[in-house]
Amino acid sequence: MKAVAVRRGEEQPTVIEKPRPDPEDGEALVRTLRVGVDGTDHEVMSGAHGGFPDGEDHLVLGHEAVGVVEDPNGTEFSEGDVVVPTVRRAPDGTNEYFERGEPDMAPDGQYFERGIVGAHGYMSDFFTSPEEFLIEIPRDLAELGFLVEPISITEKANEHAYASRSAFQWNPESALVLGNGSLGLLTLAMFEHTEEFERTYCLGRRDRPDPTIDIIEELGATYVDSRETPVDEVPAAHEGMDYVYEATGYPPHAFQTIEALAPNGVGALLGVPDSWEFEIDGGRLHEEFVLHNKALIGSVNSHVKHFEAAVETIQQLPEWLFEDLITGVYDVDNLSPAFDDGDDVIKTAVEFDSL
Amino acid sequence: MKAVAVRRGEEQPTVIEKPRPDPEDGEALVRTLRVGVDGTDHEVMSGAHGGFPDGEDHLVLGHEAVGVVEDPNGTEFSEGDVVVPTVRRAPDGTNEYFERGEPDMAPDGQYFERGIVGAHGYMSDFFTSPEEFLIEIPRDLAELGFLVEPISITEKANEHAYASRSAFQWNPESALVLGNGSLGLLTLAMFEHTEEFERTYCLGRRDRPDPTIDIIEELGATYVDSRETPVDEVPAAHEGMDYVYEATGYPPHAFQTIEALAPNGVGALLGVPDSWEFEIDGGRLHEEFVLHNKALIGSVNSHVKHFEAAVETIQQLPEWLFEDLITGVYDVDNLSPAFDDGDDVIKTAVEFDSL
Repeated sequence: MKAVAVRRGEEQPTVIEKPRPDPEDGEALVRTLRVGVDGTDHEVMSGAHGGFPDGEDHLVLGHEAVGVVEDPNGTEFSEGDVVVPTVRRAPDGTNEYFERGEPDMAPDGQYFERGIVGAHGYMSDFFTSPEEFLIEIPRDLAELGFLVEPISITEKANEHAYASRSAFQWNPESALVLGNGSLGLLTLAMFEHTEEFERTYCLGRRDRPDPTIDIIEELGATYVDSRETPVDEVPAAHEGMDYVYEATGYPPHAFQTIEALAPNGVGALLGVPDSWEFEIDGGRLHEEFVLHNKALIGSVNSHVKHFEAAVETIQQLPEWLFEDLITGVYDVDNLSPAFDDGDDVIKTAVEFDSL
Repeated sequence: MKAVAVRRGEEQPTVIEKPRPDPEDGEALVRTLRVGVDGTDHEVMSGAHGGFPDGEDHLVLGHEAVGVVEDPNGTEFSEGDVVVPTVRRAPDGTNEYFERGEPDMAPDGQYFERGIVGAHGYMSDFFTSPEEFLIEIPRDLAELGFLVEPISITEKANEHAYASRSAFQWNPESALVLGNGSLGLLTLAMFEHTEEFERTYCLGRRDRPDPTIDIIEELGATYVDSRETPVDEVPAAHEGMDYVYEATGYPPHAFQTIEALAPNGVGALLGVPDSWEFEIDGGRLHEEFVLHNKALIGSVNSHVKHFEAAVETIQQLPEWLFEDLITGVYDVDNLSPAFDDGDDVIKTAVEFDSL
């Protein structure tokens, strides 16, 4: 079968031939429909994040997949079920985090991530997965199913952020998304359509006309140009934010978020940057945390319940959003544009097959 | 009556004469027993924190009080009840935060703090308080009642910290208190006696012999000398901490805490420092937050439920702790040693009367 992989020493995806996998006991064989491409894939290819499976000279890419059960192999699924796989797997079969359904909380060394670190991903004609890591989705979501994983990332971040505010009566009205990439825009759409924020904002650094600014405004949100309004000046220019969602991976944003928050607000950090030293007014930020009861939480990955929540969410988002957000779906034989990241590209996927 | 106040332009406490207050409707008149002294009082006197009541040339100090109801004045209390007052009051009678019992979550301008900002404190022979801000405590706690307020500060911080970890199964075992002042030591004792941490640590910068190190070790905790082991090197020297409680007000600690935490850990920040610029590896800290699901929460003040929890807590702490912790209780006519802060001083109080 065909697979899209990055080979050791290379930084570009290549189509390779691999044997079709055989499902083991408890696993189903899935025929891949589409696999989304995101910033993590680019980091994996450049070597900035992730790692090859032990002893392998290549890593099959892709962690945002949707497929059709080809061979249920005795699992709870039936042939033809449309499914989305989760990303983390236990290196040694299982461990306490996986046993309690929270692989997203496993520390280093207690997880692989398919397509990212230690295990091959889903960009191939077929893949196998233990049944407990497959989420069935409605057939009419088959074409959009590769968005379930990224949306699940925000479901988890929101759950942790809201939990941090659960010791008191929190009535959030304003939310700011840092970053106008596909995850930022999906999150902004969730803030508008499922999270009930009254006023939403999205920060980027683009000139008009720009397709992401069009989406931001079509969603009813306010575009904040970071070149005019740095994150820590957002309260002066707009208002203090009850919730800030960081999806830029730009470390100054993580710390400026503390000042962007309204009293009692929370910031969720999602980016995975490299080391970078810079100066902060640590005294001022420390005081801000304390005197205004602020919180920052970091969030990575997601688990089955977040995928299930994402399936509910995707059905509440407007169709036009997906039409505008998905700027290209490319056949495995025309791979290159799926990995472009120009300003006209928002979200792409590689298509292996259709229903 | 006598009162201990700081006058505008001065930085030392002075005993002044003031008229005994008359309770208004809904208020009780309380005869003061003891009022504790803490770091906030020193910050208020130096002008680093807090502020005088409008139009007044002095501020009566003290926010950690215990007293006896002298005149119930039609409230739910009886003459002779031993009570502890909360600290925050609404500038304009009330507002939404006070109405829902969460004055500790009120933003700037929507609260006064008695003895700290905008309202006179409790260091006087008598004080009045609305009944809803008085917590009755057992008579046998009268001498220790001034510790209820500082303990309530930790009850709130713990509540918020644990809430931030409530979206998953958190099994904390290790806790580190930054700071060996009285609040740090009380918190450490709570970690040992009521919070069920298996291993606890307390960071200071003192040479042995030292009375705070004696308390740390008597509690069964490990003393960490910050001159040998900086906060961000605690995981290498000991272990990653599930919970870090910052009670130093030293801003680098707020950010080093991120590295001191174990995966999925939370840091509670309590200090109120001044502006101070310094360099951090913001990229590394940002990545630590995200990849290890870490959290930082700031916490200030506390409300009635935290005071009630503190009354339960104080009864679970060992008597020797209070004997060692309270290094001096001084009559209002011998005030000066109550405001000393040498290395042999841990916790002091000013005594106005006894039961």
